[in-house]
Amino acid sequence: MMKKVAVLTSGGDSPAMNAAIRAIVLSCHYHQLQCTGFYHGYNGLINDQHVDMHQFDINSALQQGGTILKSARCQAMLTEEGVMQACNTLRKHDIDALIVIGGDGSLKGLKEIKQHWEKPVIGLPGTIDNDLSGTDSTIGFATAVTTATHAIDKIRDTANAFERIFIVEVMGRHSGHIAFNVGIATGAEAIISFENFTPDQASSKVAEILKGVEKQKRTHGSFLIVLAENLWPGGAHALKASLSEQGQVDSALCILGHIQRGGSPVPEDRNLATELGIASIEAILDGQDNVMIGKLSGTVVATALEDVINTPKPVSSHWVKAHQRQLTHYLK
Amino acid sequence: MMKKVAVLTSGGDSPAMNAAIRAIVLSCHYHQLQCTGFYHGYNGLINDQHVDMHQFDINSALQQGGTILKSARCQAMLTEEGVMQACNTLRKHDIDALIVIGGDGSLKGLKEIKQHWEKPVIGLPGTIDNDLSGTDSTIGFATAVTTATHAIDKIRDTANAFERIFIVEVMGRHSGHIAFNVGIATGAEAIISFENFTPDQASSKVAEILKGVEKQKRTHGSFLIVLAENLWPGGAHALKASLSEQGQVDSALCILGHIQRGGSPVPEDRNLATELGIASIEAILDGQDNVMIGKLSGTVVATALEDVINTPKPVSSHWVKAHQRQLTHYLK
Amino acid sequence: MMKKVAVLTSGGDSPAMNAAIRAIVLSCHYHQLQCTGFYHGYNGLINDQHVDMHQFDINSALQQGGTILKSARCQAMLTEEGVMQACNTLRKHDIDALIVIGGDGSLKGLKEIKQHWEKPVIGLPGTIDNDLSGTDSTIGFATAVTTATHAIDKIRDTANAFERIFIVEVMGRHSGHIAFNVGIATGAEAIISFENFTPDQASSKVAEILKGVEKQKRTHGSFLIVLAENLWPGGAHALKASLSEQGQVDSALCILGHIQRGGSPVPEDRNLATELGIASIEAILDGQDNVMIGKLSGTVVATALEDVINTPKPVSSHWVKAHQRQLTHYLK
Amino acid sequence: MMKKVAVLTSGGDSPAMNAAIRAIVLSCHYHQLQCTGFYHGYNGLINDQHVDMHQFDINSALQQGGTILKSARCQAMLTEEGVMQACNTLRKHDIDALIVIGGDGSLKGLKEIKQHWEKPVIGLPGTIDNDLSGTDSTIGFATAVTTATHAIDKIRDTANAFERIFIVEVMGRHSGHIAFNVGIATGAEAIISFENFTPDQASSKVAEILKGVEKQKRTHGSFLIVLAENLWPGGAHALKASLSEQGQVDSALCILGHIQRGGSPVPEDRNLATELGIASIEAILDGQDNVMIGKLSGTVVATALEDVINTPKPVSSHWVKAHQRQLTHYLK
Repeated sequence: MMKKVAVLTSGGDSPAMNAAIRAIVLSCHYHQLQCTGFYHGYNGLINDQHVDMHQFDINSALQQGGTILKSARCQAMLTEEGVMQACNTLRKHDIDALIVIGGDGSLKGLKEIKQHWEKPVIGLPGTIDNDLSGTDSTIGFATAVTTATHAIDKIRDTANAFERIFIVEVMGRHSGHIAFNVGIATGAEAIISFENFTPDQASSKVAEILKGVEKQKRTHGSFLIVLAENLWPGGAHALKASLSEQGQVDSALCILGHIQRGGSPVPEDRNLATELGIASIEAILDGQDNVMIGKLSGTVVATALEDVINTPKPVSSHWVKAHQRQLTHYLK
Repeated sequence: MMKKVAVLTSGGDSPAMNAAIRAIVLSCHYHQLQCTGFYHGYNGLINDQHVDMHQFDINSALQQGGTILKSARCQAMLTEEGVMQACNTLRKHDIDALIVIGGDGSLKGLKEIKQHWEKPVIGLPGTIDNDLSGTDSTIGFATAVTTATHAIDKIRDTANAFERIFIVEVMGRHSGHIAFNVGIATGAEAIISFENFTPDQASSKVAEILKGVEKQKRTHGSFLIVLAENLWPGGAHALKASLSEQGQVDSALCILGHIQRGGSPVPEDRNLATELGIASIEAILDGQDNVMIGKLSGTVVATALEDVINTPKPVSSHWVKAHQRQLTHYLK
Repeated sequence: MMKKVAVLTSGGDSPAMNAAIRAIVLSCHYHQLQCTGFYHGYNGLINDQHVDMHQFDINSALQQGGTILKSARCQAMLTEEGVMQACNTLRKHDIDALIVIGGDGSLKGLKEIKQHWEKPVIGLPGTIDNDLSGTDSTIGFATAVTTATHAIDKIRDTANAFERIFIVEVMGRHSGHIAFNVGIATGAEAIISFENFTPDQASSKVAEILKGVEKQKRTHGSFLIVLAENLWPGGAHALKASLSEQGQVDSALCILGHIQRGGSPVPEDRNLATELGIASIEAILDGQDNVMIGKLSGTVVATALEDVINTPKPVSSHWVKAHQRQLTHYLK
Repeated sequence: MMKKVAVLTSGGDSPAMNAAIRAIVLSCHYHQLQCTGFYHGYNGLINDQHVDMHQFDINSALQQGGTILKSARCQAMLTEEGVMQACNTLRKHDIDALIVIGGDGSLKGLKEIKQHWEKPVIGLPGTIDNDLSGTDSTIGFATAVTTATHAIDKIRDTANAFERIFIVEVMGRHSGHIAFNVGIATGAEAIISFENFTPDQASSKVAEILKGVEKQKRTHGSFLIVLAENLWPGGAHALKASLSEQGQVDSALCILGHIQRGGSPVPEDRNLATELGIASIEAILDGQDNVMIGKLSGTVVATALEDVINTPKPVSSHWVKAHQRQLTHYLK
């Protein structure tokens, strides 16, 4: 019989992880289950750093960024020894099911656990990057997009005042979800992302941008380039240097960085996290195992961890095309 | 041949109406169409107050709440004379298609126009209330939810400090989309909305709340009631009075009001508005007519105005149930 | 020898009370003093609800609105019996000095304590109303002004879209500091506050506003009236009714209410609270007693509680005049 | 007789420059003066790019960051020829007084103008850096501090989740006003600024930080270093490298950059700008010349441009000491 659920947050933290934790704890309470938390991602499982979740002031956590359970990346989980030790801790505490909130790497860890532990494991998609299939949006993505959008709105003010070119690098690991959503929301004159750029196009892309800048200059405006991280050969500084060399164009560079990870979650993320948190407990009670709980087209869906990990989630080609149409205004 | 598109915003304004206008203007530019705006909703059509949209600084508008075309309700559109006059203005300016951004009443006006004007009419869902079928979310809804959530987060601080009961009334006209989304995002201890309350239940609802408050008091916490407008018999003040009379319980009352209408749109609304704005021009070029362009399960969809107007859009029963589960924590 | 300091927050809570508490706790740690907190304002003193402050996660509190020590108004402190009981608790715990963070009423309570307790008492100005002399700004005032300003910015959007008249009531108890600061920051067309209005002027004020509205209408704009609470005879609803009766003018009404009390404090408040919190411990060590610590013209100053309580702090006449000049634009 | 006032914004833009412009335009209207704006700082004066200010929608500008008059740095003003040409434009348009809103360099330019032009010149302190004497706060400073504080609050969330060390570089040109105000508001464990650091102390500073980090680690917390720009030998990246080399400590680096320049101004800045804008017109009418209008200890004050430019404005030593006390918690 199901009695004790464990939960941990793993990998890069994302806003509303706390909202997911809160929903899990309240749902455990509703179904009269105990809930144990492990600190610092899988490290807490390996080192047995645990806490009774019913002691937390989980209601205050709903508004807060970060994670009350702390998070971390965990090298030890890449070794069989580490995985075995994690499973031992689960057994030691008589855990009946494990929920892990995190991204791609965290779900891979969960699959490893499953190799050596017989009880149900459930993943929840917690990452700002939105690079997990099996869910339209990941927990934290909407907040990261909002934070980056507000930051770029501010940059737009000063860019307009100086009629200046700005390169703004946003997060996203290896996908363009943040870049496209933020780029369209801020009316960026150029979005450079995985979906519309490959490294060998760098030179022609610079030429295209310079053409756009030239046109924009004649209309006395600013020119904003949103660049996805981990993409441009040599990084954002290299792009800036290229614009300077090829076009004698001076640009300012902003790397938004970690501000995109934190902050009080927007309601969209809180509600998604709450819904998925509740659903994760129901999934356990329904006998689900080895799945990630996500939301697709408004419906809660369980997808095999295997499929989540191996299926890429591209930015909608519709979006890419739509943006291209808008850009035509500047580029043709 | 399609040459000239007209656009207006009508009814209660909503954040990102400007983003929709901008997308329409840029798309017109892309497809080499002229774009004419009419001011003050249908009044501008009746009184012929128009403007060449290509003169606007539409890029700045992307960030701004309100509507650069102004909005208004229009009594004259309820008369055949008014509708005829509106159609005359459309003919006078050789308009080839009309796009109206607004809510329920505005789309009804568009249907009336269609009775007396042969050219295509397209509606876009612009309202904070999210009470239009044919689209998962309306333009402005996400921003209104965000604004109300942030406001209630602040109220929660002072409610916690005083361990106090608060009634917060939110907008939504005759639907509970805002109430439910905001109530769950803020962890409201009670949500009173169209989906879980009828006027004859008022007395038992008060008793239920008082029971929850009693429990909450023993755990030294605040108690937050989110109330949908236009629902409680006698209004929010009557609810406050009932709590006082039936339970000797003192509560504070906040009516969030018009702050929910304004403000810089959140990226979700900007992007929805941009996508639907682009799609509205494509719909016209594709020969669509008498439809509203919305987004369902991630896909742009055209729905007959007739169906949009006559089909209610309830809050998902899943949400209502999920919230009930959470509340059990306090109410059982 | 000074060994143990007590602290409590009293009366209406204000943002950055937590920042003051944090600074007091860190300063106690620096000077090797113990620090005891009492919950729920003076009630915690009367009922002996105390906590060792060094157990708190005071660093997280820096960002948070409300007060981790809870607050309350306390009727019992108006009786000699209540005051005696509070003093007994202080003696029971061997408290060597008492710091109270609160407004006018809270400082009066502190004066009462002083009648029956020989040890030093220190007040810190914690109220959103800024109605305490002895300090240019009170802890929480800047945040309340910021919250109200942002709310009215949103209202302005919708007011502009509808070219509509809005009455917005702001807090301030019996002073116009919030009304004037917010009214000027939002470019309100009219500010009605204690400094420029008495109840018998109600009728002529309505006429003046109607004149302004008339002028504004001709320039197609919105008209915003910022009204101080507790001022207009019959309240904001009565003002709305008068505009309707005397001028057939329809206006919308927003009472901002408790959102002005909460929220993460702005840096100005956090820094003021930190400086005054540090200074309160130094004041105790310097032998100060029966004073409130405030900041005047950039310098930390101790003012006798007696003087703080009995000296009104009007809004600068310079501000009132300056505003009048701006208004001339609309009113002459 | 005074008839025509000119205004321009120069150098790095700062939030609420628009509020100052608005106040100047409204005051000109009140005193029946004409008001001419010049675009792009001194460049607009040299190239005669002007605009009648009464055409602007100055009320909307009150809420907006950036500057509707655009800004720029201007190399030509460093040459006598450029200055002469600027003066010619002033004569050509019969300007009777010139107001320049900007920082240190902009006020120097104004002094140059004064060498070749007989009419009154007035400076207003517009810079986020707060590095101008003659005023307690510059226009834009409070907003920049607020933006940086909110950004670092978000970083704190993720730093806490990972118990990680962050270096955050803030703006300030060559002064520590932003660094100290932001560092104290965010509870930074270390503030490295001009007032408490010289380049030759780099090595001992790293040792000190590592000691603090060590202590912090034992209490499971994050460690936040706020670093003033243009200070550390080799920049923030070099500091990060030193921590890694000397202490095997991994830290994350965020350079907040241009987000600190933009955004809707906080009410404090709007009100300061409004007050100084009004005062600048009154100063002209009172016969003032060759001065900057600022606010000291709550009073509007005119200071000779000469003195403003040549007098440094250090961060209060009181602040530096207070911060040191707080740090003791971590460092001793």
